Amino acid sequence: MLLKQNLTLYRIVKLTWKVDLIMISLCALAYYVDIYLTPQVHIPAMVTTLMGTAMAFFIAFNNNQAYSRWWEARIIWGGIVNDSRSWARHLLSYTSDDENKTVLVRRMILRHIGFLYALKTSLRKVHDDEFKKFLSEEEAKKVKSFANVPSAILDLQADDIQRLSDLQLIDGFRFMQISGVLQNFCDHMGKSERINNTVFPTNYIYFTRLFIWLLVVCVTVTASENVGPWAIPLGWVLGFVFHTTHISGMAIMNPFEIAPECVPLNSITRNIEINLLQMLGESKIPAPEPTMHGGEYIL
Amino acid sequence: MLLKQNLTLYRIVKLTWKVDLIMISLCALAYYVDIYLTPQVHIPAMVTTLMGTAMAFFIAFNNNQAYSRWWEARIIWGGIVNDSRSWARHLLSYTSDDENKTVLVRRMILRHIGFLYALKTSLRKVHDDEFKKFLSEEEAKKVKSFANVPSAILDLQADDIQRLSDLQLIDGFRFMQISGVLQNFCDHMGKSERINNTVFPTNYIYFTRLFIWLLVVCVTVTASENVGPWAIPLGWVLGFVFHTTHISGMAIMNPFEIAPECVPLNSITRNIEINLLQMLGESKIPAPEPTMHGGEYIL
Amino acid sequence: MLLKQNLTLYRIVKLTWKVDLIMISLCALAYYVDIYLTPQVHIPAMVTTLMGTAMAFFIAFNNNQAYSRWWEARIIWGGIVNDSRSWARHLLSYTSDDENKTVLVRRMILRHIGFLYALKTSLRKVHDDEFKKFLSEEEAKKVKSFANVPSAILDLQADDIQRLSDLQLIDGFRFMQISGVLQNFCDHMGKSERINNTVFPTNYIYFTRLFIWLLVVCVTVTASENVGPWAIPLGWVLGFVFHTTHISGMAIMNPFEIAPECVPLNSITRNIEINLLQMLGESKIPAPEPTMHGGEYIL
Amino acid sequence: MLLKQNLTLYRIVKLTWKVDLIMISLCALAYYVDIYLTPQVHIPAMVTTLMGTAMAFFIAFNNNQAYSRWWEARIIWGGIVNDSRSWARHLLSYTSDDENKTVLVRRMILRHIGFLYALKTSLRKVHDDEFKKFLSEEEAKKVKSFANVPSAILDLQADDIQRLSDLQLIDGFRFMQISGVLQNFCDHMGKSERINNTVFPTNYIYFTRLFIWLLVVCVTVTASENVGPWAIPLGWVLGFVFHTTHISGMAIMNPFEIAPECVPLNSITRNIEINLLQMLGESKIPAPEPTMHGGEYIL
Amino acid sequence: MLLKQNLTLYRIVKLTWKVDLIMISLCALAYYVDIYLTPQVHIPAMVTTLMGTAMAFFIAFNNNQAYSRWWEARIIWGGIVNDSRSWARHLLSYTSDDENKTVLVRRMILRHIGFLYALKTSLRKVHDDEFKKFLSEEEAKKVKSFANVPSAILDLQADDIQRLSDLQLIDGFRFMQISGVLQNFCDHMGKSERINNTVFPTNYIYFTRLFIWLLVVCVTVTASENVGPWAIPLGWVLGFVFHTTHISGMAIMNPFEIAPECVPLNSITRNIEINLLQMLGESKIPAPEPTMHGGEYIL
Repeated sequence: MLLKQNLTLYRIVKLTWKVDLIMISLCALAYYVDIYLTPQVHIPAMVTTLMGTAMAFFIAFNNNQAYSRWWEARIIWGGIVNDSRSWARHLLSYTSDDENKTVLVRRMILRHIGFLYALKTSLRKVHDDEFKKFLSEEEAKKVKSFANVPSAILDLQADDIQRLSDLQLIDGFRFMQISGVLQNFCDHMGKSERINNTVFPTNYIYFTRLFIWLLVVCVTVTASENVGPWAIPLGWVLGFVFHTTHISGMAIMNPFEIAPECVPLNSITRNIEINLLQMLGESKIPAPEPTMHGGEYIL
Repeated sequence: MLLKQNLTLYRIVKLTWKVDLIMISLCALAYYVDIYLTPQVHIPAMVTTLMGTAMAFFIAFNNNQAYSRWWEARIIWGGIVNDSRSWARHLLSYTSDDENKTVLVRRMILRHIGFLYALKTSLRKVHDDEFKKFLSEEEAKKVKSFANVPSAILDLQADDIQRLSDLQLIDGFRFMQISGVLQNFCDHMGKSERINNTVFPTNYIYFTRLFIWLLVVCVTVTASENVGPWAIPLGWVLGFVFHTTHISGMAIMNPFEIAPECVPLNSITRNIEINLLQMLGESKIPAPEPTMHGGEYIL
Repeated sequence: MLLKQNLTLYRIVKLTWKVDLIMISLCALAYYVDIYLTPQVHIPAMVTTLMGTAMAFFIAFNNNQAYSRWWEARIIWGGIVNDSRSWARHLLSYTSDDENKTVLVRRMILRHIGFLYALKTSLRKVHDDEFKKFLSEEEAKKVKSFANVPSAILDLQADDIQRLSDLQLIDGFRFMQISGVLQNFCDHMGKSERINNTVFPTNYIYFTRLFIWLLVVCVTVTASENVGPWAIPLGWVLGFVFHTTHISGMAIMNPFEIAPECVPLNSITRNIEINLLQMLGESKIPAPEPTMHGGEYIL
Repeated sequence: MLLKQNLTLYRIVKLTWKVDLIMISLCALAYYVDIYLTPQVHIPAMVTTLMGTAMAFFIAFNNNQAYSRWWEARIIWGGIVNDSRSWARHLLSYTSDDENKTVLVRRMILRHIGFLYALKTSLRKVHDDEFKKFLSEEEAKKVKSFANVPSAILDLQADDIQRLSDLQLIDGFRFMQISGVLQNFCDHMGKSERINNTVFPTNYIYFTRLFIWLLVVCVTVTASENVGPWAIPLGWVLGFVFHTTHISGMAIMNPFEIAPECVPLNSITRNIEINLLQMLGESKIPAPEPTMHGGEYIL
Repeated sequence: MLLKQNLTLYRIVKLTWKVDLIMISLCALAYYVDIYLTPQVHIPAMVTTLMGTAMAFFIAFNNNQAYSRWWEARIIWGGIVNDSRSWARHLLSYTSDDENKTVLVRRMILRHIGFLYALKTSLRKVHDDEFKKFLSEEEAKKVKSFANVPSAILDLQADDIQRLSDLQLIDGFRFMQISGVLQNFCDHMGKSERINNTVFPTNYIYFTRLFIWLLVVCVTVTASENVGPWAIPLGWVLGFVFHTTHISGMAIMNPFEIAPECVPLNSITRNIEINLLQMLGESKIPAPEPTMHGGEYIL
């Protein structure tokens, strides 16, 4: 998540310099082809304007859907924060005091932090076994044998809920509340996977790119009649505006990537970890996730 | 679901070559009729622009609704994934240990995989009895006699939930949780059928097509005054832009069809099957659904 | 619900011929008034274009809201399908076997079909007592005395749920599940009534009509300067485009009307009836609702 | 709620005559200033068109949000209808027969009608004690001492639900169902208050008004170059179109006002009253709320 | 929340005077550069119009998302109002009469007011210990040691719910209802934090600002050809329209700030406090939150 209101010039140039160079070259090419090779060809302003209308639709559509994906991802992880707190609160407050309680409840809360690390790792498609810290060795080994590690951790949680019940530490009503939170984790996990694994319909992105190039050529050729070679920078400026809008959407289309614009899973996970460890009364609490590049963004 | 960022040229040409030929012919016809038969007719740019505005509405409307149908379909099947995992987890963790348990729970989890195959087959309107593998012969025969096979499989599941309860393997609270998941499957099934069986209002699609042709003729005639025969390729280019946008929406309008752009039911079903069989501790786990055409898409 | 991709020419002409005639007359009138009576009046293209922008807003707004009403109606009746299946499944699977069970459960399932017929009739504002077939004579007479017949049928269902409980055929947990489905029916009914009884804000429809006429006149007068009498067909073509878009929305604005474009209540009700009778093991199952006009639509 | 498809001329003139007069004066003023005082000033069509684009955004935005508020208000009161029926149905069907039952249940149902009258009065900000008819004198006096009367009535209902339980007329499961409906009433009430008390962001409405005036001046000045004094009526016509669109939204922005376009609380409340009294078997049932101005609207 | 329909001139000037001055200077600069330094450069109207189309998208997008954030924030705090009433109602009506009840229930209701103050303070990022008034000294000290104070208060509430249960003041069903409301508070809190801590994607805001400047320059240069130095005020007027629209959205983008346009947390919290103290039968009820600047807004 970007934290600062202003983009650094560095970031803009870094994002667009390649495309800017190609676009200026394309405009220049279009200009010289139009002037020297096909002087009889004109593109009336009406055609360029209609194409701009079609572009506006494409870009608005892509950005709207990209933002929806990004915001839905944020909502899901907001839900994970809420349910993580409920998970720990239910386990700590709603279980009868008993020698087994302390061990079992502590295990279930720590294991939940492990679940979050495993889910984060799986969504970001990195290999990282940090989740093992929060599970017993035997459990860690078992869950690694499953295709879906975080789901296997939830299976262990369900077994422990049943155990709480068998030990009569919770009654049926409390069972329902705690099991309901577990089912929420399963849903949050599945929703995150859905966004992560569903490619946005390729057509929309491909044709947006194609039509931006087409539009830039049209603008250059249309403008060349009135303003001569100044058509080249004008074509580029319009191309810059449309292209920048397009990549603003692309940057948040896959919100679980490890990128400055995406949902800050590291930071969210760490905050939950801090909350839960404090509730357990632990003395060693880790520091919040640091910001990157001098406070520019957080991962 | 298409997996690659770039469309192959093959796919674009395959999708549009017929329409492209017709459109170029239409532009040429419009041009020659305008020049040789009715030279006194002009279409002012204002009329063409207003028609373009109407088109922009139609195309944006169709695409937005198509995307909503596609994304809702994806959400429903995402929900099926989540509830399938909860189904197996509940059955495995929340039932008392007992000789009956192993048989009954295993039967209910396998039968659920059968339900998914039956639902997939019914949504895609193909004839395929793969679901029978996961039911006993007697059950398979019984459900085939019903108009709605997947619904009949859910009836068998409900009988078995009651059986779990009669055998005192679950109490009332666990009954509610498991029965709640079953009701979710019934809802997911009905929602999928709703999208599948509800034809998108015909008017919108029909008039979009009609008005694209109209617009192409207007553009050609309007442009011909300034640019002569170059109006023909210009008419075609604009037609290509609008038509391509239109078919991008059409391709995902009916998201359960067996097509590269649609919801990959095969792959989702197979992934659930793998998850559930692993939870049952089976040794023979099928491979994930392979991608098609060298990784271009998955069904 | 229209079933075919192409509208028949018959349907388009039938829908628009009156308006087409009026519109052509209006264009002709505007043209002759402009040319012969007020030749000094011009309408600049800028004014016509701005009016087109306002029109585009109105028409997009109306169509979006109309589609939302139509789709929400479809979702509600999709929910009725799902809950009807859950209703029968719960009653059949979750009740203890007993001599009373068969009678009571059968009565409640048949009465539910009666509820659907009564609701359908009430939404479509026709007089039709088909629902009586599924109730005892005494019950039918009783519910007819209420202002809201389907709601009175739900009251009978609630009495029978209590009866199931009194006879100890269901426990408290099953009571909650079955009663929850009954409450869903009450909600679905109320939501259908809300859409049916809430007139879409009159202003929007009235001014859309008014402004289409205004726009057609402006287009004709603006165009007449460049193209003479050809302004008349041009005005009509644009009017046709905008008017057609408008009536496409109007056709689905009140989605429970008995019209080809509306939600096919007959067909949905019949399908539920077939499902439920099969679940009851009935031998006499009615045929699905036939399509109309050679498969053009279904009611 | 307006009931007729056509607005009467009376209503349109009544709504707009003041603004129409001001607008024509403004256009005339702009015209004469432009011609006689500052003949050297022109406003190019491009500037006017861009301003029209900004206007289109503002007006679309306001209308969309206004409609959302109106439709959400209607949905909330639709939910009140549904839950009122469930409230009476649960109380009548799910309580054990007992001498106390008749008194208690009747009191709770009548008091609910009182709640609706109190809520309606509070939302419409009128002083009206009609709700007292449905409460005992003592209760009426007590609830009047609270800042929020309808909320105080709900407190009485909660006491009576507990009483039903203490008298063993309902068990825990039925308690949950009935208490759940009560919590829904609390939510519906709060949601209505939220819409009613939240002023739509002032900026949007203020600047829309300001910019409409600006646009009208621009149109008049731009048009005056081509069409002379005809610019005045043209400016007014465009102003009429934009202004009418604006006030269509304003009319439904605060949906609980006592106005023809707003949610018909009187009619909805009366219909619930009729339904509930019929369920109680009362003989004296009030007539439905009459329509106003010859069927033009209902309050 | 602004309360008045009209903005005071003071507020508009205060909001925009800096930008207005910069914008006029920029227009003047652009004009003189264009006329004296680069007289051969023209920007065709088509380019300016296309850039306006891109701007319209950006501004509509930002405003729509800003309004969604603002309205969601309002909905969340509306939900807090509703659940606060349910919280007090459940505690007062659904607990058995007992000497412990009065103490415990009163403590839980007062502590809830403390929760609201703590949450408000944390969302507005101010340091303020007003919440301590509603907790015992010991509790206040304990919750201050947690990273998230309001969440720690909820932990205390959960302990007291369990205590109610241990003292047999509530049964399992009432436990579920009250605990459900507590879980809602946890969700409302987390949702508020999500909106508050998630920076709106920086790109959209940054480029909107950049492109407004670009557009103003384009308008001035394009207009200068027809209207000479009048292009400067025209450029400024268009800039004012677009910029005002932009900052209208920005003002509500972070809806929990202490600003006139934002969600009035002070007022909402105070109203809940009044309601809850009245339900407790307290005699000392605080006055509602006063309006600011002579009724212009409320915080």
